[in-house]
Amino acid sequence: MTSKNPFSFTLQATVDAGVGTARAGVIQTPHGDVETPVFMPVGTQATVKSLSPHDLLDAQAPIILANTYHLYLRPGSDLIERMGGLHRFMAWDRPILTDSGGFQVFSLAHNRKIDDEGVTFKSHIDGSTHRFTPEMVMRVEEQLGADIIMVFDECAPYPATLDYAERAMKRTHSWAERCLQSHTRSDQALFAIVQGSTYAELRRESAHVLSSLDFPGYGIGGLSVGEPKEEMHAMLEETTPLLAEHKPRYLMGVGSPEDLVECVARGIDMFDCVLPTRVARNGALLTRDGRLPIKSARYAGVDTPIEPDCDCYACRHFTLGYLHHLFRAEELLAYRLNSIHNIRFMTRTIAEIRASILDGTFPAYRQEFLARYRPTDREIAVKQRQQWLQAHGRLGKPAQ
Amino acid sequence: MTSKNPFSFTLQATVDAGVGTARAGVIQTPHGDVETPVFMPVGTQATVKSLSPHDLLDAQAPIILANTYHLYLRPGSDLIERMGGLHRFMAWDRPILTDSGGFQVFSLAHNRKIDDEGVTFKSHIDGSTHRFTPEMVMRVEEQLGADIIMVFDECAPYPATLDYAERAMKRTHSWAERCLQSHTRSDQALFAIVQGSTYAELRRESAHVLSSLDFPGYGIGGLSVGEPKEEMHAMLEETTPLLAEHKPRYLMGVGSPEDLVECVARGIDMFDCVLPTRVARNGALLTRDGRLPIKSARYAGVDTPIEPDCDCYACRHFTLGYLHHLFRAEELLAYRLNSIHNIRFMTRTIAEIRASILDGTFPAYRQEFLARYRPTDREIAVKQRQQWLQAHGRLGKPAQ
Repeated sequence: MTSKNPFSFTLQATVDAGVGTARAGVIQTPHGDVETPVFMPVGTQATVKSLSPHDLLDAQAPIILANTYHLYLRPGSDLIERMGGLHRFMAWDRPILTDSGGFQVFSLAHNRKIDDEGVTFKSHIDGSTHRFTPEMVMRVEEQLGADIIMVFDECAPYPATLDYAERAMKRTHSWAERCLQSHTRSDQALFAIVQGSTYAELRRESAHVLSSLDFPGYGIGGLSVGEPKEEMHAMLEETTPLLAEHKPRYLMGVGSPEDLVECVARGIDMFDCVLPTRVARNGALLTRDGRLPIKSARYAGVDTPIEPDCDCYACRHFTLGYLHHLFRAEELLAYRLNSIHNIRFMTRTIAEIRASILDGTFPAYRQEFLARYRPTDREIAVKQRQQWLQAHGRLGKPAQ
Repeated sequence: MTSKNPFSFTLQATVDAGVGTARAGVIQTPHGDVETPVFMPVGTQATVKSLSPHDLLDAQAPIILANTYHLYLRPGSDLIERMGGLHRFMAWDRPILTDSGGFQVFSLAHNRKIDDEGVTFKSHIDGSTHRFTPEMVMRVEEQLGADIIMVFDECAPYPATLDYAERAMKRTHSWAERCLQSHTRSDQALFAIVQGSTYAELRRESAHVLSSLDFPGYGIGGLSVGEPKEEMHAMLEETTPLLAEHKPRYLMGVGSPEDLVECVARGIDMFDCVLPTRVARNGALLTRDGRLPIKSARYAGVDTPIEPDCDCYACRHFTLGYLHHLFRAEELLAYRLNSIHNIRFMTRTIAEIRASILDGTFPAYRQEFLARYRPTDREIAVKQRQQWLQAHGRLGKPAQ
């Protein structure tokens, strides 16, 4: 990349983690630098739920994600463009990444009909009919004006047959080329998306095909959609070694704290997930030992912060006893303080991971983190995810 | 008052407003000074709904109110005392006023049974049975530890018969004496509460009787409970001239922006009301011209702040178009930004009122404010209040 390019990625350090190579780097964007690995909070509707831009800066979020599908439907990308773009609209002058709407079209929209040209679907808000094509999505993402934008892809659900997964992957490749051709804004970096479901041969093919095209970065999509963690890890181990070393790799929609550690170990640089803010609103606070259920009577009157060594606004000022009271009383402040802490937990964890890569101690960090952090019971997590997918029409018989 | 007393009130200026005497002063409390007239945001459950202490400081709230009834029931005043009192519990180190729970016992609690000793009632949360006496309420308010606390009173609903209003008033006087005798904390100022419903002779008697007792300040209760504004104004005109000039006067549960102007004109120094935060959550933004309904389609894409000259966080950073989007999308940030603006509108308005008293221009300020500010249609407001009172079991036949 030349110095004139507003987007670049500099690899600063790598560590052999056995299962893959962990990396530390810096992404340069027109709205500032992003140190990697990075966790990106999700601002679906141009707001990270319950948080202001000030809260996000205070929680040290360097970049956020916004959802193209949601913003296209409401308030509309034309309107956001007229108001000066997404950064100005939501008063966030740091980097933003927009997804392409692919995942939402396949998971949230109704009556979707897919063909090689694009997808026709009905809005989940008002039932109105819309059509996304690669060219159309590029236009929408240019209107939104994020620093990093994603190609329009077809995200196969889990489980998918080999045949369907292959067709979806090939369509994704074809759409990636069309996105590359129709994208015009030089101040935006367009990332491709590797697909291939849980089939190693497809993942390898997808990484190979997309690597041959000149994208400045790569998303890895279609994972963490219901498959066992072991399958996700295996797919990453197949994929990341085939991607150009000097380009960032973004694992879409992942993940939990333990996912950060395990997927950085497998060569991932960027993450996004609604998990920290969603579970916050349900009363689960992230700590080094796992999730803390703030609603539990055991926290009534407890005069210590969530984590004594946490520097977030919630931990600096409030006790577990007060947070317990707010949550029990269904006060709006509860959702915000819980979210602030969880976002800071994620940014702090990823900063520690990065530091351990830079000083070469990542394998020990990973071991210690996983020994201490107690993940949510796998069966509960899988069940919750299945319920969510079911509720959103994603699940049924394997996609054909 | 001696200089050793942590509480004092200094009258700084008065202005003849025709209908009464407007006053500017300063209340000194153990947690800092409060310039009057003052508007106090309401933090019912130890949080002003949707706002953090930082938000309140930024909106220049000098003192907040918390509700004794709610906090006694949940999380419990014993627990708050153990956690160091209300200031520490909610991380607010500025002045706090607690009401006595009188109003809530009569408006929210179920199955209340009143006798001369106190009131037995069932919790609106879980139906558990409790009893408030003046002595008990003093104990609870001492546990909470606010800077200004209120006597336990019987708040007659509107309309009330003369006979009932008189009995409630006399009970309030008797209870006020008992509160005075049982209150022990010298770092709290205990205010009496004038009652008497909408009967001028009762209001005069109540002011007279309570003035003969040594309270450092006076609440005026039982107004803004459904009566026409003219009646409320008439009652203030009967009451405030009889109260000691060198003690602050607090009109409880009032009010709207126009109420601030009209009641300062009638000698009131202190106000509290849920109105700015409640209407904020319903999408009504306070402006110099009246309430702005942010949900209205006319604000989509509007690229200006709520009020160009407002210095609140919402107006400094966000447009009407963005606030409209947040509210339509039911995002939690909408409730917070709307509340921040409305609180700042109230603190800014009362600061302007104060400045106009200090420089003698209050009558002109009042005239200009009322000429420009368009109150919510009276009939709508009355209907909303009646519905609220009905929903909370306050309304029915006149109290006997």
